[in-house]
Amino acid sequence: MPKPMKRRSKKAGLPPGTLVHIGEQKMTEPKIILIDYDETHFEEKEFQTIEECYVLKEKPTVTWINVDGLHRAGILEKLGECFGLHPLVLEDVLNTDQRPKLEDYEGYIYIVLKMLYPNGQNQRIEAEQISLVLGPHVLLSFQERQGDVFNPVRERLRSGKGRLRKLGSDYLAYALMDSVVDNYFIILERLGERIELLEEELVANPTTKILHEIDHLKREMIFIRRAVWPLREVISSLQRGESSLITQNTRIYLRDVYDHTIQAIDTIETYRDMLSGMLDIYLSSVSNRLNAVMKVLTVIATIFMPLTFLAGVYGMNFKYMPELGWRWGYPFFWLVIISLGVFMLIYFRKKRWL
Amino acid sequence: MPKPMKRRSKKAGLPPGTLVHIGEQKMTEPKIILIDYDETHFEEKEFQTIEECYVLKEKPTVTWINVDGLHRAGILEKLGECFGLHPLVLEDVLNTDQRPKLEDYEGYIYIVLKMLYPNGQNQRIEAEQISLVLGPHVLLSFQERQGDVFNPVRERLRSGKGRLRKLGSDYLAYALMDSVVDNYFIILERLGERIELLEEELVANPTTKILHEIDHLKREMIFIRRAVWPLREVISSLQRGESSLITQNTRIYLRDVYDHTIQAIDTIETYRDMLSGMLDIYLSSVSNRLNAVMKVLTVIATIFMPLTFLAGVYGMNFKYMPELGWRWGYPFFWLVIISLGVFMLIYFRKKRWL
Amino acid sequence: MPKPMKRRSKKAGLPPGTLVHIGEQKMTEPKIILIDYDETHFEEKEFQTIEECYVLKEKPTVTWINVDGLHRAGILEKLGECFGLHPLVLEDVLNTDQRPKLEDYEGYIYIVLKMLYPNGQNQRIEAEQISLVLGPHVLLSFQERQGDVFNPVRERLRSGKGRLRKLGSDYLAYALMDSVVDNYFIILERLGERIELLEEELVANPTTKILHEIDHLKREMIFIRRAVWPLREVISSLQRGESSLITQNTRIYLRDVYDHTIQAIDTIETYRDMLSGMLDIYLSSVSNRLNAVMKVLTVIATIFMPLTFLAGVYGMNFKYMPELGWRWGYPFFWLVIISLGVFMLIYFRKKRWL
Amino acid sequence: MPKPMKRRSKKAGLPPGTLVHIGEQKMTEPKIILIDYDETHFEEKEFQTIEECYVLKEKPTVTWINVDGLHRAGILEKLGECFGLHPLVLEDVLNTDQRPKLEDYEGYIYIVLKMLYPNGQNQRIEAEQISLVLGPHVLLSFQERQGDVFNPVRERLRSGKGRLRKLGSDYLAYALMDSVVDNYFIILERLGERIELLEEELVANPTTKILHEIDHLKREMIFIRRAVWPLREVISSLQRGESSLITQNTRIYLRDVYDHTIQAIDTIETYRDMLSGMLDIYLSSVSNRLNAVMKVLTVIATIFMPLTFLAGVYGMNFKYMPELGWRWGYPFFWLVIISLGVFMLIYFRKKRWL
Amino acid sequence: MPKPMKRRSKKAGLPPGTLVHIGEQKMTEPKIILIDYDETHFEEKEFQTIEECYVLKEKPTVTWINVDGLHRAGILEKLGECFGLHPLVLEDVLNTDQRPKLEDYEGYIYIVLKMLYPNGQNQRIEAEQISLVLGPHVLLSFQERQGDVFNPVRERLRSGKGRLRKLGSDYLAYALMDSVVDNYFIILERLGERIELLEEELVANPTTKILHEIDHLKREMIFIRRAVWPLREVISSLQRGESSLITQNTRIYLRDVYDHTIQAIDTIETYRDMLSGMLDIYLSSVSNRLNAVMKVLTVIATIFMPLTFLAGVYGMNFKYMPELGWRWGYPFFWLVIISLGVFMLIYFRKKRWL
Repeated sequence: MPKPMKRRSKKAGLPPGTLVHIGEQKMTEPKIILIDYDETHFEEKEFQTIEECYVLKEKPTVTWINVDGLHRAGILEKLGECFGLHPLVLEDVLNTDQRPKLEDYEGYIYIVLKMLYPNGQNQRIEAEQISLVLGPHVLLSFQERQGDVFNPVRERLRSGKGRLRKLGSDYLAYALMDSVVDNYFIILERLGERIELLEEELVANPTTKILHEIDHLKREMIFIRRAVWPLREVISSLQRGESSLITQNTRIYLRDVYDHTIQAIDTIETYRDMLSGMLDIYLSSVSNRLNAVMKVLTVIATIFMPLTFLAGVYGMNFKYMPELGWRWGYPFFWLVIISLGVFMLIYFRKKRWL
Repeated sequence: MPKPMKRRSKKAGLPPGTLVHIGEQKMTEPKIILIDYDETHFEEKEFQTIEECYVLKEKPTVTWINVDGLHRAGILEKLGECFGLHPLVLEDVLNTDQRPKLEDYEGYIYIVLKMLYPNGQNQRIEAEQISLVLGPHVLLSFQERQGDVFNPVRERLRSGKGRLRKLGSDYLAYALMDSVVDNYFIILERLGERIELLEEELVANPTTKILHEIDHLKREMIFIRRAVWPLREVISSLQRGESSLITQNTRIYLRDVYDHTIQAIDTIETYRDMLSGMLDIYLSSVSNRLNAVMKVLTVIATIFMPLTFLAGVYGMNFKYMPELGWRWGYPFFWLVIISLGVFMLIYFRKKRWL
Repeated sequence: MPKPMKRRSKKAGLPPGTLVHIGEQKMTEPKIILIDYDETHFEEKEFQTIEECYVLKEKPTVTWINVDGLHRAGILEKLGECFGLHPLVLEDVLNTDQRPKLEDYEGYIYIVLKMLYPNGQNQRIEAEQISLVLGPHVLLSFQERQGDVFNPVRERLRSGKGRLRKLGSDYLAYALMDSVVDNYFIILERLGERIELLEEELVANPTTKILHEIDHLKREMIFIRRAVWPLREVISSLQRGESSLITQNTRIYLRDVYDHTIQAIDTIETYRDMLSGMLDIYLSSVSNRLNAVMKVLTVIATIFMPLTFLAGVYGMNFKYMPELGWRWGYPFFWLVIISLGVFMLIYFRKKRWL
Repeated sequence: MPKPMKRRSKKAGLPPGTLVHIGEQKMTEPKIILIDYDETHFEEKEFQTIEECYVLKEKPTVTWINVDGLHRAGILEKLGECFGLHPLVLEDVLNTDQRPKLEDYEGYIYIVLKMLYPNGQNQRIEAEQISLVLGPHVLLSFQERQGDVFNPVRERLRSGKGRLRKLGSDYLAYALMDSVVDNYFIILERLGERIELLEEELVANPTTKILHEIDHLKREMIFIRRAVWPLREVISSLQRGESSLITQNTRIYLRDVYDHTIQAIDTIETYRDMLSGMLDIYLSSVSNRLNAVMKVLTVIATIFMPLTFLAGVYGMNFKYMPELGWRWGYPFFWLVIISLGVFMLIYFRKKRWL
Repeated sequence: MPKPMKRRSKKAGLPPGTLVHIGEQKMTEPKIILIDYDETHFEEKEFQTIEECYVLKEKPTVTWINVDGLHRAGILEKLGECFGLHPLVLEDVLNTDQRPKLEDYEGYIYIVLKMLYPNGQNQRIEAEQISLVLGPHVLLSFQERQGDVFNPVRERLRSGKGRLRKLGSDYLAYALMDSVVDNYFIILERLGERIELLEEELVANPTTKILHEIDHLKREMIFIRRAVWPLREVISSLQRGESSLITQNTRIYLRDVYDHTIQAIDTIETYRDMLSGMLDIYLSSVSNRLNAVMKVLTVIATIFMPLTFLAGVYGMNFKYMPELGWRWGYPFFWLVIISLGVFMLIYFRKKRWL
């Protein structure tokens, strides 16, 4: 079951802006990769000292600093100082149970997204928080663990083809958000396949396991919905917003991500409707099976009760029972029994009980 | 089952604007028909070379270019270049799992619609994406496969009667949208008939097949709703929008399509309510049948259990059982048995169990 | 069952503005009555030639032209020409499956209403489309069939009492709309009585017939809701609208009709809630009866199975069964049997199963 | 059952503004009490002649005219004339099936409220319409019957303590509305107690009577909701409205009534949720009892069917059945039977069926 | 069960602003603690005489007066006088069944919050009303009982670290609200654990107790939702509001509390969905068990009824029954019986009934 909430309680009572990592520690050592580029120049290296940060800040090239792993608050604090981030931003980066949201600070925009990925062990969907801080020609991205969802973007940067290298940090932010949203479709497709499989099984053999699977998928949908639904408003306000950090050109691309988000939400809603329908079918198939069982019982009882009664009659010890003395009494008894049985079978067949 | 989503995953990770056709390939060879007209002049021919496009662009006549089949990205790219379309527009034309939407670019409007048609083999409703690009006196339309839904419009253009030849490309766009919406009513009527048939069957003989059919129709409704519902907003924003491409005259006609769309949505909602009501009736008819079966069982058991007991009594081997020796014991036994049976039948009839 | 939609498909593909009557032909010959009045003058006659129309248009008196029966498109076309109506208005007058709506054209307002009346044969509620065209001192009204719903208004006009003769065509339009809305309450009262009757029956004897009746009434409610709900917005926009055709004085009266419409909608919603509650009661009464049946079966089986077993025991043929030889064995057997039976009856009575 | 609607049909067809009392006649003779006060002066008397009205209108003191009983249209008409009320206001005062609403006329505000009280005979909740007409220093209030809900306000006026005597007619209107809303809480508390009682009964012994009681309370909630819900908007628009009749000081007090109304609505919603939960519990308790019944039947059948079979076996008449001749056959038979029975009882106990 | 409403009825009829404590008396003696601080200075003492209040009001330091226990109206009245509070504010402080709300008075803001805590005896969630009055450099807080929820804030004030001592009374108000909202997560986590436990039990052994527990938790959710939901709007209007009492700096922190409130609401909704799913599973598991019981019954009956019949046949007393005389008749009978039984067992195993 996707946990509906993470342990926030350890933060209760602490002053705001206290940097405590809320969430599981998903990797051993944080890793910071720095990419610096413009149309002609490209540089990629591991982040060494915090002084680099102050140098890069001044350069007109686009700088992308990607932090994988959040459990070392010290590095974050230094980064925050260098780029002048509000303490609440750093706190939110570390509290990995944020909803997707957009916060417009003076000089930079803070965006929270949710990446979805299937847990390796039990195939449950889990969410990873991705934070983006978009400055004039700087983009900071924070991930809970080393992921490959941004690799295609890195590849495009390295190759230098396409628009990416020519445009600013806002387009880079768009590219990252786009890859996160594209990833939703992969997750949804996989769930769609599981729903379809489940449906076939449901028709073939409705067991309690299927009921629990339906319930489980319903919850996955609730979980995914919570991760995707607020994104709609985030992108919409980015696209319509008056922030000067987003160029007109990028806004058109954001409209595209917006459409994809709506499509993802649409798909989630459709899956929820489908799962509700499957629940109805499951419940009525349980009733139908009860009906079938009861019919068998009724048929058996209706056939054998009269027969047993008849056998009982001729087992009585009355002195004067003429039939008992008849030569053909016994065969005649069988004749009656078999006719009665056959007649009832025909009758039940007619009533479609068999 | 209408697939809730198409395979988008193959696009994940590609840069935006990459032209990859998402959707099934619904015909073998794309076909491009060019119609050029004004009030006095009419020309219809197959599109040959891309140079024609540049010539037509300059002419004051209305030019309608209709593309059937989307799997050859090359032609689209050239068309896009000629008319200065944004790469995202071309991408959306090819990704046939868009929701109906309207995008206002500088100089042209991009509209996505969904055509519904029954699949020939299994009578499932399927959707075809129709993209319209409306420019000053140009209309581009993209269909997934050769359809006959635009034929009446072509016929009206050829005949030259009516308003169509006298008005601009915006009225042509309206005419195409109108024929798509009119087509919804044909689909809905057909589904309405299936629902009515199903209803009669449901009263006559509620089987599991009917349950699955109800569920299936509910999904068709969800599917159609997804295709029609967003159209409402598309047309509404076209009609109220401040784009100079739509003349005042056409706006009045758009209000008419808007009304039809609302009516279609209304009908879909009514069908959904009807199907929900049918599900209720199905479920309660299953319960009723269980009741009926149990009544039969109870009647049989209630009649034969006491009788069998009595027969058992007179099959006992006690030495001193005066009844066994009576002359009329056996006939009297039958008398008691039959009276008891008749009495019970009357009793159950009175309780309306039979 | 109220048909959820009329056959629109025959219109698909026709150019907009084509005058085809959609709907059943509800009377044999259209009838046009012309009423012309002001405070001092009153004239009522059958409409003869289209020339009259041009004369009346110029006069400062209020002219009310009422058309009963829509299947003769020719007359409509002429009327439309005389008063300068848009072709789409005429088309909508003829397509009798419009939703209630208001369209503001230059110089006149077009209003669509739904009259509800019970079908004479099967008591189903049917809807008749009423179209009003309100001009400066002209009111055109179109009905599908000769109805008596406007008669009280005509009576008030003839008598000359009250405000009606003193005020303009907008007040006349209000008066007609008011009588349509008042009529909803008559229909709703009748349905309310049917619901109450059904409820009593449901408590007394819940049969499948009642289930179907509940379902049927639910659908009638959906049908009526579709006819009444959009009227709310129509009247609201009339009342708040900036059209100069509606005087300040009439607006106050429109607020009154608006209130009535809300009340009608409220009543419909209440009826729907009541019907849902009745469905719940029906379903649970089915379960209760099953419970009752099963209890009878269980009581019978629990009493007679042990008794039959005992009788079986003393029917065994073991050589050494001392009881069989006892003098009072048989009476004692009966004693045991009867005690056991009585004990169980008391037990079940205590458990409230009997 | 609270009647969902009153008989409006007798008004259908009458011109608007016709004064017909709709609703039951709840008292024998209308009674009009006139209270005239300012900070220093207080006068209370029965209203005698209509001339008084014209005198009072001119005086700067606050005048409160309270009318109990609405079935004498004549008096109302004269009052209306004196204070210049619109005929529709008088009509609405008499039609006691209005929804709570606020209408802003020039010079006065017309407010409709619903008083709830339990019917003495059957404890059903009924609604009484209270109309307020608020003028510059005049307040007219109309009640269907003599009620004591305004008595505390009268008492405060007489005693002259508190703000009431110092402030204008708008504060008096607030005070009356406040006492109506306070009264809702008394009704809701009483219903809350009935729900709690019902709940205890439901756990102890779920009978059909309880189901009907739940359904009945659900309807009471719908009924009360209809009376209270629109009040929210009424008070909200009074409080925010730009009418000069409401002073700034009174607005703060209106915000207080507004909060109470929201609280009442909240409570209604909570009760509805609770009643829905109780319905679920009722239905599942019916299923549970069926389960219990079936278990008893199955246990009885499973124990006695094999035993009866065994007894049947040794009742057979085969010539060569060695067991029948054994010396300890019969006691051994009983041993087997009892062991079998005990074993099964233990088995069922383990399966928790007993 | 959390009481859906407190006894308000004792207030009905009293004039507004009457100070009557509504709610349980939760402690014996009210306790008033006064904290006065700025960046350099800190003072904490018990409140002695009302004169102190007038002194503090004039000082530029931030003054926080915390009142625990509300049942002594006299002290409140004096405080209200000193700070110029509206009588309605004092009334609302005492009526502890307010919804969370924000009221903007001239010169100060009045905020109502709900603290949630588990009742010690029965683990039910209860709510305590917390009222805040925020003035220029004054904060009054009113609690129903001595709570430790504000202790961490007091600790931070005493230690003098962090922002708290440097900023104004608005930041202090934020800090208190933040600790209330943080506390919701502790409550929700605890409920989440109970839901998870319940879920495991539900799978293992679905008893009626679980049904009641699910219903109970659903109500707790309704109760909590009522306490948390309106807070969203309160904080949102604080943050966006134009009140000069809230500085720009504090607004950013309020956005953070707002996010947390939304998260809490999200979690509540998820829990409600989970509980609904659990109800579905419970109901279907009841049906499944019925199915299982019926299968056992049917299997037993189907096996033993034919066997008993056969035994009955050979217990008949016909004179001419050749089988009875056969040497191997009896063993052969057993052979038939056992084969039949085994065959049926195999058959039922195949049908997966066993």
